[in-house]
Amino acid sequence: MSPAELHADSIIIDGLIIAKWNRELFEDMRKGGLTAANCTVSVWEGFKATVDSIAASQKLIRENSDLVIPVRTTADIRKAKEQGKTGILFGFQNAHAFEDQIAYVEIFKQLGVGIVQMCYNTQNLVGTGCYERDGGLSGFGREIVAEMNRVGIMCDLSHVGSKTSEEVILESKKPVCYSHCLPSGLKEHPRNKSDEELKFIADHGGFVGVTMFAPFLAKGIDSTIDDYAEAIEYTMNIVGEDAIGIGTDFTQGHGKEFFEYLTHDKGYARRLTNFGKIINPLGIRTVGEFPNLTETLLKRGHSERVVRKIMGENWVNVLKDVWGE
Amino acid sequence: MSPAELHADSIIIDGLIIAKWNRELFEDMRKGGLTAANCTVSVWEGFKATVDSIAASQKLIRENSDLVIPVRTTADIRKAKEQGKTGILFGFQNAHAFEDQIAYVEIFKQLGVGIVQMCYNTQNLVGTGCYERDGGLSGFGREIVAEMNRVGIMCDLSHVGSKTSEEVILESKKPVCYSHCLPSGLKEHPRNKSDEELKFIADHGGFVGVTMFAPFLAKGIDSTIDDYAEAIEYTMNIVGEDAIGIGTDFTQGHGKEFFEYLTHDKGYARRLTNFGKIINPLGIRTVGEFPNLTETLLKRGHSERVVRKIMGENWVNVLKDVWGE
Repeated sequence: MSPAELHADSIIIDGLIIAKWNRELFEDMRKGGLTAANCTVSVWEGFKATVDSIAASQKLIRENSDLVIPVRTTADIRKAKEQGKTGILFGFQNAHAFEDQIAYVEIFKQLGVGIVQMCYNTQNLVGTGCYERDGGLSGFGREIVAEMNRVGIMCDLSHVGSKTSEEVILESKKPVCYSHCLPSGLKEHPRNKSDEELKFIADHGGFVGVTMFAPFLAKGIDSTIDDYAEAIEYTMNIVGEDAIGIGTDFTQGHGKEFFEYLTHDKGYARRLTNFGKIINPLGIRTVGEFPNLTETLLKRGHSERVVRKIMGENWVNVLKDVWGE
Repeated sequence: MSPAELHADSIIIDGLIIAKWNRELFEDMRKGGLTAANCTVSVWEGFKATVDSIAASQKLIRENSDLVIPVRTTADIRKAKEQGKTGILFGFQNAHAFEDQIAYVEIFKQLGVGIVQMCYNTQNLVGTGCYERDGGLSGFGREIVAEMNRVGIMCDLSHVGSKTSEEVILESKKPVCYSHCLPSGLKEHPRNKSDEELKFIADHGGFVGVTMFAPFLAKGIDSTIDDYAEAIEYTMNIVGEDAIGIGTDFTQGHGKEFFEYLTHDKGYARRLTNFGKIINPLGIRTVGEFPNLTETLLKRGHSERVVRKIMGENWVNVLKDVWGE
């Protein structure tokens, strides 16, 4: 098979996209051959604003049903593949939207939410994010993990503090993930994960999606798709070929205002970080260039079997473990 | 002056009442000669439910204006004394009602809130309460403290964890308080404060109101008003005669359901503690028996000058420092 044929034949999953949702993006997802993506519908929003965000996203999916379908099960992912569409899976980057109601976990599951990151950068009712001192998983957080396990929502720890992450990994009875992270072995950064952290999650049945967000890469905005592939290989060497996948963190279509929102606590309070200019690695600047990643991994000597795993099959397996379907 | 005359002549402040708000209670406040009280209007409630609680309380105060008046300034406290009424000051036992909006601090100040406890028993966005592991004051918490300082709302730390408390004491530019606590020197309990903690808050210009809540007293429900006076004396020996006051924690009028609400995280989630039977110390079982405390303190050898301070003058001074009026 040619690289293009392999890409077209494979299940391609992006474990984290936080792009601007519109038809243009959906068209680029099709161009990129994406089978499904975890699409962020909540960051700093509370319960009601998140429901509004989901309702708007559902309407957008309906209006573009020639390109995308909603994903609630792994069967939906296979259906997307069969129909030549991209499956849209709703995810949160913050458990804040659950507010103080354990019951909201199942409410959101019914609305199509399949992955929830426990904290986004700072402290919430559940634990603490990676941009401030981390006191660990709260008692309420343990109740939330149990409820996410029960209803089948995957715990994501990408932006979560080290201590809270470790305790969620130990607390959860289902696999958890870093949906989009990079190894601090290649660059020290509050958002990157150490070899020990990567090994710990893998040793406990967890999963790692590798991102290519420029500020966390050693070469920053001068990175290429080969630097991204190197980070994937570095991570795979630690977690193994069954626990690794893609989680790009594409922010396509968003402008300065959105990054200001992301980089301030609660979306408006104190500044937590400043990304500076964001340019994705050369060769995978847009979602539409996704096939280049398959080609690059093949070129670097990985077998078709392993490339299929990295590009999506592993994600499907772990999601099936968590969702139970 | 007889004890009764001194009580009638003094400013009597209760730093914490969480009773059932109704006319019967207001009548008992008048019987007890209360000049003003910090009355809890929010525990687990979020923003909207707290506004609703305040609106209902304001209506109740209006409907009983022959007995009570609202308190927003220390001048209002003196006005209550002159008019022979009891001043009702709104307080929160949890910063949860601010939700994720720093601007809500000033919104609530305008609605008459003068004292806010940073956490109630468990973790919130600001810090952590005394019934779970405490990772300290969050970055958002520091912003909330600064805003409370700016608008003039006193930080209360009674149910707050030890580490968060220490950090609020250091962070605040205005005096903070334990509005209702007991010394762990007399009984070990998660809610009681060690000699070191009491000294630390006093050394930093803070204030301590002493409670008589039976589960935190050495003799429990067999305690008498003399045991309460002993705890006041023990605390005063540490913090000095200018930094001490009363904070009874009267729960008058509430039944089992309300205590279930208080003792579960978020009002409904996991159980945090179980108080068992609650009976206030003999001699001060009801708000109406407040004059017995003045009499008891006199009988135990305290001067009129010191008794006036303990019973209310100190509270007025520290509130003036925080409120600026």
